Amino acid sequence: MNYQNLFSEIAVEAQKIEDSGAVATYIPELGNIDPNKFGIHLTTLDQRRYGLGDFDEKFSIQSISKVLSLTLAFELEGEKLWSRVGIEPSGTPFNSLVQLEYENGIPRNPLINAGALVICDILVSRLENPRKDLIEFVRQLSGDGNLDYCRRIAESEKKTSYKNAALINLMKDFGNINNDIEVVLDLYFHLCSIELSCKDLTQVFLYLAANGINPLTGEKVTSISNSKRINAIMQLCGFYDEAGEFAYKVGLPGKSGVGGGIIAIHPGKYCVAVWSPKLNQKGNSHKGMKVLEFLTTRTQSSIF
Amino acid sequence: MNYQNLFSEIAVEAQKIEDSGAVATYIPELGNIDPNKFGIHLTTLDQRRYGLGDFDEKFSIQSISKVLSLTLAFELEGEKLWSRVGIEPSGTPFNSLVQLEYENGIPRNPLINAGALVICDILVSRLENPRKDLIEFVRQLSGDGNLDYCRRIAESEKKTSYKNAALINLMKDFGNINNDIEVVLDLYFHLCSIELSCKDLTQVFLYLAANGINPLTGEKVTSISNSKRINAIMQLCGFYDEAGEFAYKVGLPGKSGVGGGIIAIHPGKYCVAVWSPKLNQKGNSHKGMKVLEFLTTRTQSSIF
Amino acid sequence: MNYQNLFSEIAVEAQKIEDSGAVATYIPELGNIDPNKFGIHLTTLDQRRYGLGDFDEKFSIQSISKVLSLTLAFELEGEKLWSRVGIEPSGTPFNSLVQLEYENGIPRNPLINAGALVICDILVSRLENPRKDLIEFVRQLSGDGNLDYCRRIAESEKKTSYKNAALINLMKDFGNINNDIEVVLDLYFHLCSIELSCKDLTQVFLYLAANGINPLTGEKVTSISNSKRINAIMQLCGFYDEAGEFAYKVGLPGKSGVGGGIIAIHPGKYCVAVWSPKLNQKGNSHKGMKVLEFLTTRTQSSIF
Amino acid sequence: MNYQNLFSEIAVEAQKIEDSGAVATYIPELGNIDPNKFGIHLTTLDQRRYGLGDFDEKFSIQSISKVLSLTLAFELEGEKLWSRVGIEPSGTPFNSLVQLEYENGIPRNPLINAGALVICDILVSRLENPRKDLIEFVRQLSGDGNLDYCRRIAESEKKTSYKNAALINLMKDFGNINNDIEVVLDLYFHLCSIELSCKDLTQVFLYLAANGINPLTGEKVTSISNSKRINAIMQLCGFYDEAGEFAYKVGLPGKSGVGGGIIAIHPGKYCVAVWSPKLNQKGNSHKGMKVLEFLTTRTQSSIF
Repeated sequence: MNYQNLFSEIAVEAQKIEDSGAVATYIPELGNIDPNKFGIHLTTLDQRRYGLGDFDEKFSIQSISKVLSLTLAFELEGEKLWSRVGIEPSGTPFNSLVQLEYENGIPRNPLINAGALVICDILVSRLENPRKDLIEFVRQLSGDGNLDYCRRIAESEKKTSYKNAALINLMKDFGNINNDIEVVLDLYFHLCSIELSCKDLTQVFLYLAANGINPLTGEKVTSISNSKRINAIMQLCGFYDEAGEFAYKVGLPGKSGVGGGIIAIHPGKYCVAVWSPKLNQKGNSHKGMKVLEFLTTRTQSSIF
Repeated sequence: MNYQNLFSEIAVEAQKIEDSGAVATYIPELGNIDPNKFGIHLTTLDQRRYGLGDFDEKFSIQSISKVLSLTLAFELEGEKLWSRVGIEPSGTPFNSLVQLEYENGIPRNPLINAGALVICDILVSRLENPRKDLIEFVRQLSGDGNLDYCRRIAESEKKTSYKNAALINLMKDFGNINNDIEVVLDLYFHLCSIELSCKDLTQVFLYLAANGINPLTGEKVTSISNSKRINAIMQLCGFYDEAGEFAYKVGLPGKSGVGGGIIAIHPGKYCVAVWSPKLNQKGNSHKGMKVLEFLTTRTQSSIF
Repeated sequence: MNYQNLFSEIAVEAQKIEDSGAVATYIPELGNIDPNKFGIHLTTLDQRRYGLGDFDEKFSIQSISKVLSLTLAFELEGEKLWSRVGIEPSGTPFNSLVQLEYENGIPRNPLINAGALVICDILVSRLENPRKDLIEFVRQLSGDGNLDYCRRIAESEKKTSYKNAALINLMKDFGNINNDIEVVLDLYFHLCSIELSCKDLTQVFLYLAANGINPLTGEKVTSISNSKRINAIMQLCGFYDEAGEFAYKVGLPGKSGVGGGIIAIHPGKYCVAVWSPKLNQKGNSHKGMKVLEFLTTRTQSSIF
Repeated sequence: MNYQNLFSEIAVEAQKIEDSGAVATYIPELGNIDPNKFGIHLTTLDQRRYGLGDFDEKFSIQSISKVLSLTLAFELEGEKLWSRVGIEPSGTPFNSLVQLEYENGIPRNPLINAGALVICDILVSRLENPRKDLIEFVRQLSGDGNLDYCRRIAESEKKTSYKNAALINLMKDFGNINNDIEVVLDLYFHLCSIELSCKDLTQVFLYLAANGINPLTGEKVTSISNSKRINAIMQLCGFYDEAGEFAYKVGLPGKSGVGGGIIAIHPGKYCVAVWSPKLNQKGNSHKGMKVLEFLTTRTQSSIF
């Protein structure tokens, strides 16, 4: 595949897409972003890199980071993890309480808010310095020792995030949160506040295209089997109630964030990240999804 | 991959699996099946064939046939199809009415009962002789001109299927069924009554591993794009509320039926079918899922 | 209380009420009614009678008749009745399937559609000639031997009532319908098709203001205790998800129908019936509720 | 009615009732209560008083106090109140989040936890010293200037009440809580912690049997109309998902608390309070409900 030509085509195509969505405003700090930002970056397993637009500008990756906390908790807990969180699509919006109440405080999967809160609870229990150890894990994946949380975003979210407080209190009531609520929420908000560029993202997540190996260092991030399993979970649960749409149109496992970022993995081939802040009604980047659909259609690179 | 050796291993492994499920009894005729039947068959794109146990015995494929009616309706309607049925996982059991009521009679996807009823309604509208044309479509895929519905099963289901009658009446109330309810239900029960062996199944569904081409005849069943899309829908919706479990453990798109059959597709490589009548609590073949997990683990043949 | 003066006041008041609702159209025959019809009639325990407007014109009482079928079935079954239908408010619209699915096919109460269908199933089991015996029961209450079902309305509803067919099939699936679905639906549609005037209604339902005695004949319709219990059920369940509103504003047990009729009972004092076909968003007569609120406010005749 | 004789009969009857329930334990302090406590007290409008058993011992009235906060907030806000909380039965357990999520953070009624939290939010906005002013209001009703909150119970509930924290956070997210969450919860827990005896309760709530007048002082607590309306709300919403059962068997408006207390009102006649700590599966006093059923059956004093 000649990705250089492909990126030239994407540049033309991206211009044509009417960008009808709206920037997320529920976290005040996110509402300040320039809605016309657009970047895309692709890194192949053999470390070829292709970028377009604002691919080198850092932005708030938000829920995309839930894949990283899942990877870390899965390494620490193993299959035991699934007694506290499921692996099924939720069929409901990303922060619904209904299912939690019907299902005794066990979130459907680790990529919705409730599930990610349980993952954070596990990390608080397991790690010596949860906040420090978690960012260190991301730094190693990226090869950039200066990566950090955005305290401003974390604080902004903390002040306004009543829905997440409702979710964690409900789970605590069901006995599925072991640590102090404030401590777990603090880790969660920091997790969501990580800022990476599209270029960074393709590096950080490349291990999922590479059977669990960090291609930069050759170190094992997770087992082959777990790497496939995380991809499977992303495929089924990575886009809230638009997971089917993404599988249907893009055909790759991936994960979105309300900051407007999306990553997608072609196992054995590449990792691609796109950024465009305007979200569609389901909370996923409008233009980001369209560009990825174009990319996989042109390259016929669906896993299906 | 040496599939011959693999099948020897599977023969040993299948013996070890404790078969704790129960045969489906809600259709009286299904309850008469020998619960200890077990067969598996794999056909590769280049037409190598491997079988074990009762792989050549016909059984009621039930919901597996929903992939065939979907393929046919998708060819006839194209993208318009998705105005009447979704492509998202349901997150609920296979025959739930709750979601239908909340979502104005639009089923979540074409592989749950409600969705398959809508597909049958479309076939009734589109085909000259729906029952005849549908079985003819399956005959062409299989290369066996004698394949047929099992009238006994179809009649048995018709007499007892109050839940499906509830589903179709609810959708009719919402205006999402155009034809006479009795006519649509008749086609639906016949669709579910098709009997195929594991060997037949791997032949019939091989087009989904072959970019939409029937390898037997070289004829195009559906487009490359639609073939991938049907695989994506199977991956997300093929196992009711155990879709995540199947993606996680087996890692291939597939579809199960309450007759105890499961098919799975490795795009570009093979189609495999397994049959074991005892079902787990989610309504999927207990042993069938375990054997497929063993197969894909041993061959590392997950799409993820 | 000088009801004559009250009715003069009501005549003035009724003119003032802006009638913003809409006539029910889901049964085609109901849509043909003159939306400006308005009648009210009150009968006291000592057989004083007060009427206004179209109080002597018969109309389709629809769900109001569910109180009559309940009274009859309660006499036949006694407390055993409550194993098949509850006595709690539904908290949902009158024909919802959601609760039925969550609660194993046991309807919340006998005044929502699902509950009334169970009551009809009981009557089919218990009565020799269900249709004939039921109308005979109503004739005795009214003292009018010519009262009858409206076959045209019954047929009209039968042809279009997919939601009721969904409800009864779902309950049959749960084992809570013993007789043939068509037979039960036929009785149900006939039950709903009964036509009475406001004047008739106050006579028919007077037994509920009179501790279970038909004041016309002195015959016992039901026991004191059952009479109070039926009133209690009406109070909690007689207005779908507007039961609280009716209790709050009118303060009497009552029952509405989509034909625009409402009856209300002041135990020990009177029965009042009102008719105005335009319904509010909850499916209850808009003007009817306002007039009854005026009546009980002016007379301070709430039971609370 | 000879209440003296009635109370002798109740003494005999109460012995016979098998007390199969369980003491509430979700608030640790409540679990310490002697499960065999039993008291009942009735006060008539003309200030005759009848007591039995532990009728003069104070206990935690818990949710019964929600009627008092409602009365106070209703006086302060008037009909405007109903834009923030409904008057319909919930049809679900007392602390469900499901309905709140579906209905945009507007609780179904002021007697479930969510609704009482909104009422507390209103009191925090309206009163100068919410905690002090609220207890003062109760003191005036009772004529006992020493009545107080139980700080131990309030603290105990505060530490363990994750479900209430979930509810209020969810409503804050929907914009239906105006004040600081901690402040509102503090008032709520104090409200629930009030300790009164059965004798106190019949005095405190007598205004609802007396058209809103405090018979002790002759002062107007609330208007006639509001008094009736509060009774109507109690009738429909006072017993969570057992409201229909209470209306059916007891036939009076009332309110229960998890401390095992129940009050019931016969408008124009009396107020009765009963206490027995063992709760049935719906969270209402098992023996309390049975004794009240006996009382109203013997005296035929249902409002229906």
